[in-house]
Amino acid sequence: MLSEASGSIAGAGALLSILRDGRARTRAELVQLTGLARSTLAQRLDALLSQQWIVPTEEAVSSGGRPAVAFTFNRSARVVLAADLGATHARVAVTDLATEVLAERAAEVPIDRGPEATLTWLQHTFEEMLAETGHSPREVCGIGVGLPGPVEHSSGRPVNPPIMPGWDGFPVPEWLGERLGAPVLADNDVNIMALGEHWAARPEADHLIFVKVGTGIGCGIISDRRLHRGAQGAAGDIGHIRVASALDTVCRCGNVGCLEAVAGGAAMAARLRAAGVEAAGSRDVVRLVRAGNTQAVQLIRQTGRELGDVLASIVNFFNPSVIVVGGDIAEAGEQVLAGLREVIYSRSLPLATQHLTITSSELGDRAGVIGAAVMVVDHVLSPDTVDQAVTRA
Amino acid sequence: MLSEASGSIAGAGALLSILRDGRARTRAELVQLTGLARSTLAQRLDALLSQQWIVPTEEAVSSGGRPAVAFTFNRSARVVLAADLGATHARVAVTDLATEVLAERAAEVPIDRGPEATLTWLQHTFEEMLAETGHSPREVCGIGVGLPGPVEHSSGRPVNPPIMPGWDGFPVPEWLGERLGAPVLADNDVNIMALGEHWAARPEADHLIFVKVGTGIGCGIISDRRLHRGAQGAAGDIGHIRVASALDTVCRCGNVGCLEAVAGGAAMAARLRAAGVEAAGSRDVVRLVRAGNTQAVQLIRQTGRELGDVLASIVNFFNPSVIVVGGDIAEAGEQVLAGLREVIYSRSLPLATQHLTITSSELGDRAGVIGAAVMVVDHVLSPDTVDQAVTRA
Repeated sequence: MLSEASGSIAGAGALLSILRDGRARTRAELVQLTGLARSTLAQRLDALLSQQWIVPTEEAVSSGGRPAVAFTFNRSARVVLAADLGATHARVAVTDLATEVLAERAAEVPIDRGPEATLTWLQHTFEEMLAETGHSPREVCGIGVGLPGPVEHSSGRPVNPPIMPGWDGFPVPEWLGERLGAPVLADNDVNIMALGEHWAARPEADHLIFVKVGTGIGCGIISDRRLHRGAQGAAGDIGHIRVASALDTVCRCGNVGCLEAVAGGAAMAARLRAAGVEAAGSRDVVRLVRAGNTQAVQLIRQTGRELGDVLASIVNFFNPSVIVVGGDIAEAGEQVLAGLREVIYSRSLPLATQHLTITSSELGDRAGVIGAAVMVVDHVLSPDTVDQAVTRA
Repeated sequence: MLSEASGSIAGAGALLSILRDGRARTRAELVQLTGLARSTLAQRLDALLSQQWIVPTEEAVSSGGRPAVAFTFNRSARVVLAADLGATHARVAVTDLATEVLAERAAEVPIDRGPEATLTWLQHTFEEMLAETGHSPREVCGIGVGLPGPVEHSSGRPVNPPIMPGWDGFPVPEWLGERLGAPVLADNDVNIMALGEHWAARPEADHLIFVKVGTGIGCGIISDRRLHRGAQGAAGDIGHIRVASALDTVCRCGNVGCLEAVAGGAAMAARLRAAGVEAAGSRDVVRLVRAGNTQAVQLIRQTGRELGDVLASIVNFFNPSVIVVGGDIAEAGEQVLAGLREVIYSRSLPLATQHLTITSSELGDRAGVIGAAVMVVDHVLSPDTVDQAVTRA
């Protein structure tokens, strides 16, 4: 309906997509690139200029005449608010439309304090950081939030999240959106980590799997350069795949035999405690590995193999070009990767592993917050969203 | 380069994409929909008309004036040649640009006779069917071929195909293309089955897995309505995922423990022979199940469970909305599905299975040949390919 009713402005988003590469282009160049009528092009440029999505610049024409006006994408037109809320830690950032970080903070924020306490803290933190960077709430084009549990993508609401008491079905986007006056997108933390790592460190990879090994285990999936969320947004929940070595272990999900029940950070810490080594969680496991504790090193190597068992099957099924390992446990580095590679290279098909890269996260604990910003920018700058924005204005 | 050098024709493909829905549209409607200058629109329409991609029709204007010329997509502009070559059977079709079948044949053609003998037969069959349907080779816009082994998608060449002696690296597209004078796309048979089933029977599914259980086992993957081939085109090779029940069984791939080594049609026939029941291959297994042979029924139920073990992990990882089971063994119907459902519903996460459909193929042994035609049409009608075609003309 929209596209027929207001044809000339409806194409503004597509025009912005062309200009988003940052190159300045004159009216003449844009007419040639798009085939648009001059009058139509003028309407669309006006719509984008009036909202400062693009800015005019002066450029010398190549034939040496007087300078012609050219137009470029304005990455400072808006700001993005991004947050990665983990089980106990939060990382928050303000970025521009190219996801460059303008301000960033990390803090201890236990998610089990419930949604209102956590999101009130987040709201105030965003407000403070906006003030610090000299931006007003009106400049915020969108807010991205990562949460440590399953999230229904269409509504942004957590769905039975095991480690988030009080959050089940909580309307995160509405709650934050009302208070901060901008659209809110929420997603599972592993999905946004995959987005962030792909965007910042592996932009050339068509098919990427980001495995987070922290207290629990999950993965984010990039298929053909896009996030694969699956039919219910549940894709990537590999922590509850059954493995032979866990068949006598009960998982927190109620099933027996889950990968997470033997290879998650919480499970590893419990195994160390049973062996008389003090360890409260995944960070202690990493600390022990770094300190050279033999039991911890053996355990983490074995964890790599158990994870490798599951990923070897996934490599046969999905044929990714890159597997990235992140999360707390990944900070034990090569010990995890060694076990993982050992199993994947021996069990997956040669065709699927010949150019496979298995590596640890480059962004580390910043992957999630960068990915939350990428999620917002992808949405805000999509042609449909831009068309709606300029039509409303 | 092309898009800048010949801007007005370069957009012809995008214009065809709009018209491909089959609705007739006047020049005025197209100007409003696209925002194109009248002169640019005229050039693009001329390019499409001259190659008969579209045809003019007369339509009364809604305001009641004299009839205005409208344009519609011409699904009879070209024909498509499609073939699904299996281990011993071949199915061949001629279709229009909407993949409607104009002629179809099935024949016994052992793939192990090698590429030249098989493809010579295919060439002659295509030529005969073209003549029968009253079309000339010049009307063929593309040829799609499915092969029972791994195929490098970019080159269309088989890569170490285990049951296709003599085919490794054989230039299928060049060989057929030279003789039939049209571009050739080749792909793994399971990929084209997934395409065919998705197009014809499950167009509403965003994420679909088509599992073929024949002599071997493999799957085709639709992610976000597109075929997911993976980094080396090796995605979907689930027949060689390790399963606990096969750890003492050597697979034809040289590894031990592969799913295919216990649940493939060849393995099932071997297990029946070992128990004193005569069975040469997967078709005999199906015949025995249908005849109510107890050992065969038990075996196929167990096969469903073993396949379910692997698919339960894949459901957690990928969260499809539909799993379709095809191939010879699927013809034993509910016995396979029962075992499969039993394991998937008990082992996969509730969120991932709450709306999951597990069903047998609607197209049956025609899924591959329809999918081969879909693959060609998707390629031939893509905006870039149309632009190149009209620019060359």
